[in-house]
Amino acid sequence: MRFGLFYEHQLPRPWSDGQELRLYQDALDQAEIADRVGFDCVWAVEHHFLEEYSHSSAPEVFLAAASQRTKRIRLGHGIVQLPPAVNHPARVAERIATLDLVSNGRVDFGTGESSSSAELGGFGVRRAEKRGQWQDAVDAITRMFVEEPFAGWSSEYLRMPPRNVLPKTVQKPHPPLWVACSRRETIQFAARNGIGALSFSFVEPEDAGKWVDEYYRIIASDECVPAGFAVNPNVTVVLPMMLHEDEATAIDRGIDGAHFFAFALAHYYGPTPHDPGRTNVWEEFQERRESRGFSREQIIANAETLNVNVGSLRGAVGTPAQVIDLIQRYESVGVDQISFVLQSGPNKHEHICESLELFGTAVLPHFTEGREEREAAKAERLAPAVEAALARRDPARKAPSGYRIDEDAEVARASRSRRPLGVEVRAAGRRRFRQGFYNLVHGRTDEQIERRFGPSAQRLFFAGMARAFDPSAAGGFTGELEFQLTRTTWTLVIGENRARAHPGPASDPSLALIVKTADFLRILAGDANPATLLMDGDLELRGDFDLAPRLSEMFGGPSPY
Amino acid sequence: MRFGLFYEHQLPRPWSDGQELRLYQDALDQAEIADRVGFDCVWAVEHHFLEEYSHSSAPEVFLAAASQRTKRIRLGHGIVQLPPAVNHPARVAERIATLDLVSNGRVDFGTGESSSSAELGGFGVRRAEKRGQWQDAVDAITRMFVEEPFAGWSSEYLRMPPRNVLPKTVQKPHPPLWVACSRRETIQFAARNGIGALSFSFVEPEDAGKWVDEYYRIIASDECVPAGFAVNPNVTVVLPMMLHEDEATAIDRGIDGAHFFAFALAHYYGPTPHDPGRTNVWEEFQERRESRGFSREQIIANAETLNVNVGSLRGAVGTPAQVIDLIQRYESVGVDQISFVLQSGPNKHEHICESLELFGTAVLPHFTEGREEREAAKAERLAPAVEAALARRDPARKAPSGYRIDEDAEVARASRSRRPLGVEVRAAGRRRFRQGFYNLVHGRTDEQIERRFGPSAQRLFFAGMARAFDPSAAGGFTGELEFQLTRTTWTLVIGENRARAHPGPASDPSLALIVKTADFLRILAGDANPATLLMDGDLELRGDFDLAPRLSEMFGGPSPY
Repeated sequence: MRFGLFYEHQLPRPWSDGQELRLYQDALDQAEIADRVGFDCVWAVEHHFLEEYSHSSAPEVFLAAASQRTKRIRLGHGIVQLPPAVNHPARVAERIATLDLVSNGRVDFGTGESSSSAELGGFGVRRAEKRGQWQDAVDAITRMFVEEPFAGWSSEYLRMPPRNVLPKTVQKPHPPLWVACSRRETIQFAARNGIGALSFSFVEPEDAGKWVDEYYRIIASDECVPAGFAVNPNVTVVLPMMLHEDEATAIDRGIDGAHFFAFALAHYYGPTPHDPGRTNVWEEFQERRESRGFSREQIIANAETLNVNVGSLRGAVGTPAQVIDLIQRYESVGVDQISFVLQSGPNKHEHICESLELFGTAVLPHFTEGREEREAAKAERLAPAVEAALARRDPARKAPSGYRIDEDAEVARASRSRRPLGVEVRAAGRRRFRQGFYNLVHGRTDEQIERRFGPSAQRLFFAGMARAFDPSAAGGFTGELEFQLTRTTWTLVIGENRARAHPGPASDPSLALIVKTADFLRILAGDANPATLLMDGDLELRGDFDLAPRLSEMFGGPSPY
Repeated sequence: MRFGLFYEHQLPRPWSDGQELRLYQDALDQAEIADRVGFDCVWAVEHHFLEEYSHSSAPEVFLAAASQRTKRIRLGHGIVQLPPAVNHPARVAERIATLDLVSNGRVDFGTGESSSSAELGGFGVRRAEKRGQWQDAVDAITRMFVEEPFAGWSSEYLRMPPRNVLPKTVQKPHPPLWVACSRRETIQFAARNGIGALSFSFVEPEDAGKWVDEYYRIIASDECVPAGFAVNPNVTVVLPMMLHEDEATAIDRGIDGAHFFAFALAHYYGPTPHDPGRTNVWEEFQERRESRGFSREQIIANAETLNVNVGSLRGAVGTPAQVIDLIQRYESVGVDQISFVLQSGPNKHEHICESLELFGTAVLPHFTEGREEREAAKAERLAPAVEAALARRDPARKAPSGYRIDEDAEVARASRSRRPLGVEVRAAGRRRFRQGFYNLVHGRTDEQIERRFGPSAQRLFFAGMARAFDPSAAGGFTGELEFQLTRTTWTLVIGENRARAHPGPASDPSLALIVKTADFLRILAGDANPATLLMDGDLELRGDFDLAPRLSEMFGGPSPY
């Protein structure tokens, strides 16, 4: 088991002068402590415009600074946003390689698609295309690392003539690759691409075990075709943390940060309205945390076992003994690294520093003995599969010599229209039916909502869901979903490429949801949290529970990464 | 007078493993020394794909690393490439602000357009649009620094909805702005925009004086409308340097680096063919340095006064006494900062370190006494002009509240076609006549060239130049240019918006060029250096000499930045 620190650089409102400076300088001090006490990696996200939730928009700069304050600790991008409208692939290759040079080969290269409306809308990235852009960019960037010269690119998303992209990385063929994962399908996706899974879904150890097994099964199978030129078989989970010998003190110091983290994430990745520069997420958190399942009192009254109820997001907030137990549960199911979030919400620098020191003396020693041997054994066990997987990847290209840089021809080629309009229209249509919902349901009583959405409105509504169905998010599922609302029942029949809706019960539903019409609409509008409804008994599920977390995305809703 | 260090991160071929690592680690050590001995700024360029000439493609990473190895020295981007296809303006604002945070407010924000074919072709940037893109991006980026939230943008080059761009800079309203300058017009341009001029043209002190006077005259005039929200009235010149008590040793250690720098710059900014990953610039340099005017012997045999012959680029390679004299010449004409290039070509780390230490003990003390008082007096003298200039700038906008992030609408707006096709066609036409020339003249005798380009070919050729005329590069010049070739004379009549060609002499030429037909074509093809021809007496100029350096760009040729 390896251990990381994870930075969003959170800064809840109200803001005052000098706070961002303090935030960054404190984080550099923390990285120095983490390096000294034995943490293995410091991760920093790349997020744009996500006020309060993340002021880490240029992590390459933070990590480069951290490289000179540390000696041994690895520096992880968790993650770089790969849509070319955000970061040109050549600029990504350049910054990763330069960071690898200043840090003497300590970079972990995490990748992702970006997923919040604030970011996709801000940079004009089409949601329907971002997965394709990720796949395309990873292929291009890893070739920039290994090809001399990079032999050029011509895809729907990137056109680039042959160039020698400089400098090159210290680690060969390139730094370990990771991808951000938020659910089972993306972990499978990571495995199929032969890269590390950075899981942000605050998964409990027992569920993580199923994911890990599936991940390593795919890594060892023909399904694994590496996206890069090396395989990085590793699963990391991200958890909030605050450590103290006294449990109540740990909770007092750390639970608001953990809860704010989850609340603000839901704020930006759901349809909650956001007015840039004005919306006060910290105030909204204080007003709504209880109703969203983030209750301080509930945590304090809770049992001693950590992270058994993800809905309330306890994470690794507790005593060294509790955290050792929690880590052992993740270790026993095969998780390779836990990356801890300490800097979140209003958590204090001095408490973070204390936690890091305590982790180094009281927790870490329990996991270091025999670690190198275990890792060597794992590498040996996987070596044949890794070798076989790499043989399936298209090799680096050797560009024929004699190419001449030709500015006019290259610029003209780069400007040819490359985006089929159809995709844009489909992407917009897919989510258009969701818009406006929030305003129609927020602050209304059950009666008001149910009056507005009678059977005829519901018919239109389910037809809209069927149209918005995204087969790529269904993970191959086909079958019936049944919705038992207050006075009506609806069924969505999911086929391989499309879905259709009909009124009335299903013949053999894979999953049935029993919920008041008003609450169902609140969930879809982002005005109610399904986890809270479940705990309070206001939402009942029957059948295949694994399908439930997928529903939002299957019908065009957002996923956290 | 202030002093900087300037980094391209050059690495002449042949390459071996570990060299780029050494290059970057050495540069960090050098920055540490520079900080200690009293240098004021370390500058790093942003160049892409310019093998051997510059492996500094992610300077934000290098400067961030340097920030933790230094305490006092400023960290300058010299420059960030602003065309949005290279760096999205929001990403630029983010990286500048983050660097300002990790360095506690030590950033200088140099900007530029990018200008080599390798870069423009590599990123698909239209040469005719890059100036407009620079102006547009500087306006947008400085608003991102000061507006909360940034109120959005809709121009030909950038569409972006309202967002709060984070984090914000430590320096208020934002770090000092600079722009890369390569000739008199761009220095005037810097002044009109109220920003510092970073001059890369290795100008001699006496010429620099004229530029400086003009710069400060414009700063104090109504012509100055600041591009940012602060005025940075400063002129920096860049010079190669190597210091030793013994002149011959200084030359031996530093002249190859200085010459390679200039040769490789000409390689990438002229039409010399480049085959990515294959062309060996260092070998070409060794073969051609003499014929291009970079003669080691000539330098060694030369007088003791530095930098009187820019064609041979001696710069500040010499003894402390020589360099003190040179600096005093620049100081006396009002240059504010000299930025020295030590890391160039094959120059050695230990010699660079020695030079820096020697500069600190033997040169710097001559310029620090009374410096703060002189700078305060200058600031006071300029204060009314600066205030008046800032009043001419459009103020920061206050976005109305109530905006809601709306991904679909924002993405749709961002995708609307924004580029009028005409610009592309014009830009391509402007330079198309230049292409192919190199291959037609390279390695041919005078006779072969003159046979190929008889009077009828010349007629087409001058008509092409007239068509390619770019009024924006003419700096307001109108008049006649006369070309006295071997057996024919041609005249170009420059009007305000267009030029026309006619055979025969001019009635009242502003400038006459007397040169063999073959050499004239070699110049235009990038196969001969006008400075060398001038020195060797193969090119004669009569009339307004200031016009000569402008000619290339007036007819669609490249400028270094």
